[in-house]
Amino acid sequence: MSTALLTDRYELTMLQAALADGTADRRCVFEVFTRRLPHGRRYGVVAGTGRFLEALETFRFGTTELDWLAAEGVVDDRTLAYLADYRFTGSIVGYAEGEVFFPSSPVLVVEGTFAEAVLLETLALSILNFDSAIASAASRMTSAAVDRPCLEMGSRRAHEQAAVAAARAAVVGGFVGTSNLEAGRRYGLPTIGTAAHAFTLLHDDEEAAFAAQVASLGAGTTLLVDTYDVHRGVERALAAAGTGLGAVRLDSGDLGGLAAEVRHQLDEAGARETKIVVTSDLDEYAIAALAVAPVDVYGVGTSLVTGSGAPTCGMVYKLVAREGADGELAPVAKASRDKTSVGGRKGAARRLDAEGRAVAEVLVEGRDVLVRAWPDAEEADDAGDLPDASGGSAGSASAGSGGRLRPLHVPLVADGVVDPAWVGAGGVEAAARRHRASRDELPRGARRLSADEAAVPTVKLELGA
Amino acid sequence: MSTALLTDRYELTMLQAALADGTADRRCVFEVFTRRLPHGRRYGVVAGTGRFLEALETFRFGTTELDWLAAEGVVDDRTLAYLADYRFTGSIVGYAEGEVFFPSSPVLVVEGTFAEAVLLETLALSILNFDSAIASAASRMTSAAVDRPCLEMGSRRAHEQAAVAAARAAVVGGFVGTSNLEAGRRYGLPTIGTAAHAFTLLHDDEEAAFAAQVASLGAGTTLLVDTYDVHRGVERALAAAGTGLGAVRLDSGDLGGLAAEVRHQLDEAGARETKIVVTSDLDEYAIAALAVAPVDVYGVGTSLVTGSGAPTCGMVYKLVAREGADGELAPVAKASRDKTSVGGRKGAARRLDAEGRAVAEVLVEGRDVLVRAWPDAEEADDAGDLPDASGGSAGSASAGSGGRLRPLHVPLVADGVVDPAWVGAGGVEAAARRHRASRDELPRGARRLSADEAAVPTVKLELGA
Repeated sequence: MSTALLTDRYELTMLQAALADGTADRRCVFEVFTRRLPHGRRYGVVAGTGRFLEALETFRFGTTELDWLAAEGVVDDRTLAYLADYRFTGSIVGYAEGEVFFPSSPVLVVEGTFAEAVLLETLALSILNFDSAIASAASRMTSAAVDRPCLEMGSRRAHEQAAVAAARAAVVGGFVGTSNLEAGRRYGLPTIGTAAHAFTLLHDDEEAAFAAQVASLGAGTTLLVDTYDVHRGVERALAAAGTGLGAVRLDSGDLGGLAAEVRHQLDEAGARETKIVVTSDLDEYAIAALAVAPVDVYGVGTSLVTGSGAPTCGMVYKLVAREGADGELAPVAKASRDKTSVGGRKGAARRLDAEGRAVAEVLVEGRDVLVRAWPDAEEADDAGDLPDASGGSAGSASAGSGGRLRPLHVPLVADGVVDPAWVGAGGVEAAARRHRASRDELPRGARRLSADEAAVPTVKLELGA
Repeated sequence: MSTALLTDRYELTMLQAALADGTADRRCVFEVFTRRLPHGRRYGVVAGTGRFLEALETFRFGTTELDWLAAEGVVDDRTLAYLADYRFTGSIVGYAEGEVFFPSSPVLVVEGTFAEAVLLETLALSILNFDSAIASAASRMTSAAVDRPCLEMGSRRAHEQAAVAAARAAVVGGFVGTSNLEAGRRYGLPTIGTAAHAFTLLHDDEEAAFAAQVASLGAGTTLLVDTYDVHRGVERALAAAGTGLGAVRLDSGDLGGLAAEVRHQLDEAGARETKIVVTSDLDEYAIAALAVAPVDVYGVGTSLVTGSGAPTCGMVYKLVAREGADGELAPVAKASRDKTSVGGRKGAARRLDAEGRAVAEVLVEGRDVLVRAWPDAEEADDAGDLPDASGGSAGSASAGSGGRLRPLHVPLVADGVVDPAWVGAGGVEAAARRHRASRDELPRGARRLSADEAAVPTVKLELGA
């Protein structure tokens, strides 16, 4: 299925006008970044990169798309002819999926002609804004859960295709499985789930429902014990499955208190290995509040797939440099006071202190984008060609100098060719591992849930000529 | 493309266990409703019904789906065989798309065997929860805009497919167009858009950009005048297009103040017909605040596609009645205190006073679902067979009696056959018209933006045997 029309109309009308006046071929650099983090958040998590690269490969204007554009008179014939042959032939670098980001972090940098690069704006933002919002929320939840596993169960509270992307992004942010079958199929994610209240209510009584479930799914299943009375539900669950019961699930009431009672009841009955799964409008705060309760697994729905109060990241796709009439690439930026952006192509690196903790996000202006593949990036000495900065526009002294710089941009697309390492199931797995490493690198306070500033300042490093 | 795996795993494992113990064939009634409106909201808007019916027609387990389920061991062979032949053969009634709803309104009622109906839970909720959240936000915005048109421009802040659904739902809620091309193609919606700041920045100066745009798109285009200085931008816009310029767009700064200045400048120059379009993080409150400014069109993005603070409706899909061992359909409900639901199949009607204003949402228990097609529903006398109620569990005296009852359920699917009136472009158009009528019927205070209770109480009408 083509992704080409998942696009704002103005991308195509700008293309038409630029083709007509000869500026469509100007070399351009577009940057994706966010001006601020959602209120109180200390970091964001890049997600969706792999999905964007997959979508890029089907960004083609076929007969269906062209016929509709022609019939509606959206653009003229010259533009239709350009679109019919459209292939992105430029280059894209960006933060590796799973990496954390801060305000102004250039998470994606697209370079190509105006024509080929402007068309990707809507698609790139749709994917990165949604997926990163979910991964950012997921990371706070898995952080609050410490080493207890979190499961994604929010499909019903998100658009049906967004639900698949949300499951993927949740795994990038540390979740270990999802209820969404299509996410399992498409991205190789572990899927989970056994039964809802409807299954108990379908039966004449709870005993019959539990017996049927155990007979079909085995004693290792998870029985939902709160349809009627939790204490009796647990009794009946043990009667049906024995002490080898896999888990019980609690989906209502005072989860912390109930978990303690149920744990006691299970232990008394000898079901010491039976786990307790809790669900029911959990978010990162509820998870943190359950830290002292004997809970084994958290199932999270609504709050996760709606970004826990921040359903989009507010990322923008801005032209930061373009070839002028003189053939030179020049920085450009909008002047309006409330929506300023900084022109010019920028590299990015994270400054780490002697202990390997992040102290600043460093944007490197005035030179080519600094790109290094992730594994190499952990080699401190490789970044040694970047001189120490003597301060930045927004950073503290310690943020601007000392330690070492870990480059953040990796090559994603070179001359139109997508690097396959970033897509498919392998891309998701790698992103999840990378997120853990990137989060572990943050200052200790960065994982607090309370509202605060970005965990590290973003500073600009001017290297001059 | 099949929609069958856009489903939580537990729907399939419940199916497996029910097939094994013979309960899968029990006749069931599932109801979609929401326990409460988002904080402060006075009504919700049903949207997504048409999309759900389209998705139902491709809810088929083909080779791709079955092979994956088999390889993963999600369900046993018997269940796979059932899924291979799956077709929904039951019946669905619901609120017509565009209709307003309140807490407990049974917006969709699905009747069939447990097996065929339980499988639809996730898909139905994903679609209705997302689309209704967007339409509900859209309705507040178009209400605040009174008779000024609102345009949907939020694709970049939503998942790329959710963006298409959001555009559709926005139109159900009163928006007159969208920037999203795929939404235009798929649902016949008007699409809009001309240029972004990137187009101005691409050029060596604003004059060149405006000249190029007018040359290509005509003087009737909309020029974005705030890239550098608004006053000079307007001068240059008029120089490029003349006083026949279609519109100028303001996307930053104090929109109200700027609109007044720009209107004055345009009028002074003789461009009295040139319109002013404003965009820039608008929501219903910002739109209301601009009521006194000389603004012609509102373009709304982020806030719309994220539901203006309520990105999901919290609708649930609950088993409310099922055939027992005795073959009788019996009401069922979960007992937990914080998530009660009312068992039993329920009809629904809106009680209108003598002036045709809604005074209550009436749930009719203890009898078959009351169904009437929309046009007939406006015939007061047709509902005359429903006796006046003498009060309800939650309503005022006036809510429970007097006036007339307008039935709310319409047939959507009969014996597995989808009524084509609800799908495609025609379905969207009809839903938008219906929403206007339904909103106009609400009590006068219902359209206030300030936080308050549901505009009318939901009452239960007990008809006895």
